[in-house]
Amino acid sequence: MHSVGKSWLLLTGFIVFYIIYLLFGALVFSSLERPVEERLRADMELLKRDFLNQSCVSSAALDAFLLKVLSANKFGVSALRNESSGSSWDLASSMFFANTLVTTVGYGHTTPLSDAGKLFSIFYALIGVPFTMLVLTACVQRLMQPLVAAPVGLLRRSGLERRPATAVHFLLLLLLVVLCFFMAPAAVFSLLEASWSFLDGVYFCFISLCTIGLGDLVPSTSPGQKYRPLYQVSVMVYLFLGLMMMYLLLRTFHKMADQHGLTAFLQLPRCEESEPGEEREPIVDDERLPLPPPLSEKDVIKPQESGSQPSYNSINRG
Amino acid sequence: MHSVGKSWLLLTGFIVFYIIYLLFGALVFSSLERPVEERLRADMELLKRDFLNQSCVSSAALDAFLLKVLSANKFGVSALRNESSGSSWDLASSMFFANTLVTTVGYGHTTPLSDAGKLFSIFYALIGVPFTMLVLTACVQRLMQPLVAAPVGLLRRSGLERRPATAVHFLLLLLLVVLCFFMAPAAVFSLLEASWSFLDGVYFCFISLCTIGLGDLVPSTSPGQKYRPLYQVSVMVYLFLGLMMMYLLLRTFHKMADQHGLTAFLQLPRCEESEPGEEREPIVDDERLPLPPPLSEKDVIKPQESGSQPSYNSINRG
Repeated sequence: MHSVGKSWLLLTGFIVFYIIYLLFGALVFSSLERPVEERLRADMELLKRDFLNQSCVSSAALDAFLLKVLSANKFGVSALRNESSGSSWDLASSMFFANTLVTTVGYGHTTPLSDAGKLFSIFYALIGVPFTMLVLTACVQRLMQPLVAAPVGLLRRSGLERRPATAVHFLLLLLLVVLCFFMAPAAVFSLLEASWSFLDGVYFCFISLCTIGLGDLVPSTSPGQKYRPLYQVSVMVYLFLGLMMMYLLLRTFHKMADQHGLTAFLQLPRCEESEPGEEREPIVDDERLPLPPPLSEKDVIKPQESGSQPSYNSINRG
Repeated sequence: MHSVGKSWLLLTGFIVFYIIYLLFGALVFSSLERPVEERLRADMELLKRDFLNQSCVSSAALDAFLLKVLSANKFGVSALRNESSGSSWDLASSMFFANTLVTTVGYGHTTPLSDAGKLFSIFYALIGVPFTMLVLTACVQRLMQPLVAAPVGLLRRSGLERRPATAVHFLLLLLLVVLCFFMAPAAVFSLLEASWSFLDGVYFCFISLCTIGLGDLVPSTSPGQKYRPLYQVSVMVYLFLGLMMMYLLLRTFHKMADQHGLTAFLQLPRCEESEPGEEREPIVDDERLPLPPPLSEKDVIKPQESGSQPSYNSINRG
């Protein structure tokens, strides 16, 4: 089959499979969560009925009251007395919020209420997100020698071939990251947060370090937390180190996959290069630059082409 | 100064500046948001006092009631009657949730309640996030020829030099993305969502397409929304196309920056290569692979080194 046609077929296949994957997820989530939601909803109905029985307000007055309570809650202001002591916008909490913006984790447990706050968030993230990535990159560069090159060298000196050495090293690093950045923090969180189970801790770590940041579980937000600012700064440091290690792990996976020919195997056909007779503008030369996607998980599957590198070198880099 | 020392100094500078940037953000957010929060909190106090005056429940009973209402609300179950019609876990909503997981946007307006749901979320994202990036990458590859190479060729044929042509093209593309993926959708959202201003729309688009996904504003979640499933699917398509365009924009910026020597200017010193006498294991050869960070914004500032490419070509790719 013609390579352009094959490449389009592959893309169509990807998109179809993507939609199927979303539908599959939807079905599983729906079947898992709907019964829990319905039970909670029935409880809520019962609670309201009981409350109305013992009070002398009308159902409409209660609804009007609850509407206001819930919309204030959406903006981080709880109607509960015991929660009203801690502000969502003290210095430590604001810094925690700024950190979730620039790392793109974005829990959303606190969100700007004012228009000025929203505008500032946009400009703050516009500079902060690339800058955070720059700092993370710079840190990961330092770690490549002690955590990747040196241990692989050690494994090779102990008699392993190059490929098994990189594979063993990757598995050891993966184990280290899972233990130190998922299991251990999860255990700590389940101790510090009264309502969290160990699974909640693992779930929080995973959702955070993938930068999904759902925000259903956020440490240091329960009422009456001791040493809250210190706790918040610790979580920020954890997030930074965790993201760094995730990135290091991905780079190492990329290297290992490359050594094992996995990247070449999973590589997409390049449609730009298969068009015959297309005018090749100079800009297309550096088309073969690495193309990192919104998330680096991509480099696991989409490497650059080795054959295209020499032309990249010919670019005038000013 | 020795290059290793300089490189460490640069890293220290980055980290110090990063902390300062977070502190600066914290101060601005705190000063912008705290007054709004305090006003809202005072309103809430007043509301509760008024409510208690007209009802005959005790303050403690009301607090107990509100505690349950607010914790149910956290799990997406509202105590308000008019909101209880739509489930957060019907097929369209579940698919919307699955989509926010795999794109790492993660609004968190609905979150799994059950342990099974949390576990499934972890495994679903583990496969879904890299897969989404693969699909996005494959799509962006198709768009490079019609949206980048072809227009730059056109600009060059009209008499522009290579550098100005790429710069003009990037600015035009940026304008196109801002208009079509920020301004136009913001206008549509401000029409469709009763409580959203135009700024709210822009803020939602920005927070979503940066994958921050705070979730304070999520379309299709207000009560009594018409054609909700269709609306949700449209938002999903918007998110996918928007992320694709953001990625395309970043690739184009990278190319332009490279043409103008900006990438070389902003490049970090590579500490791995500057260590003298370190053993160079074969794995270090592909150390010079592109290193995409958790977010692709990085490739705006951290390019690969042109000089290191030839050694990459020597890797056995299986």
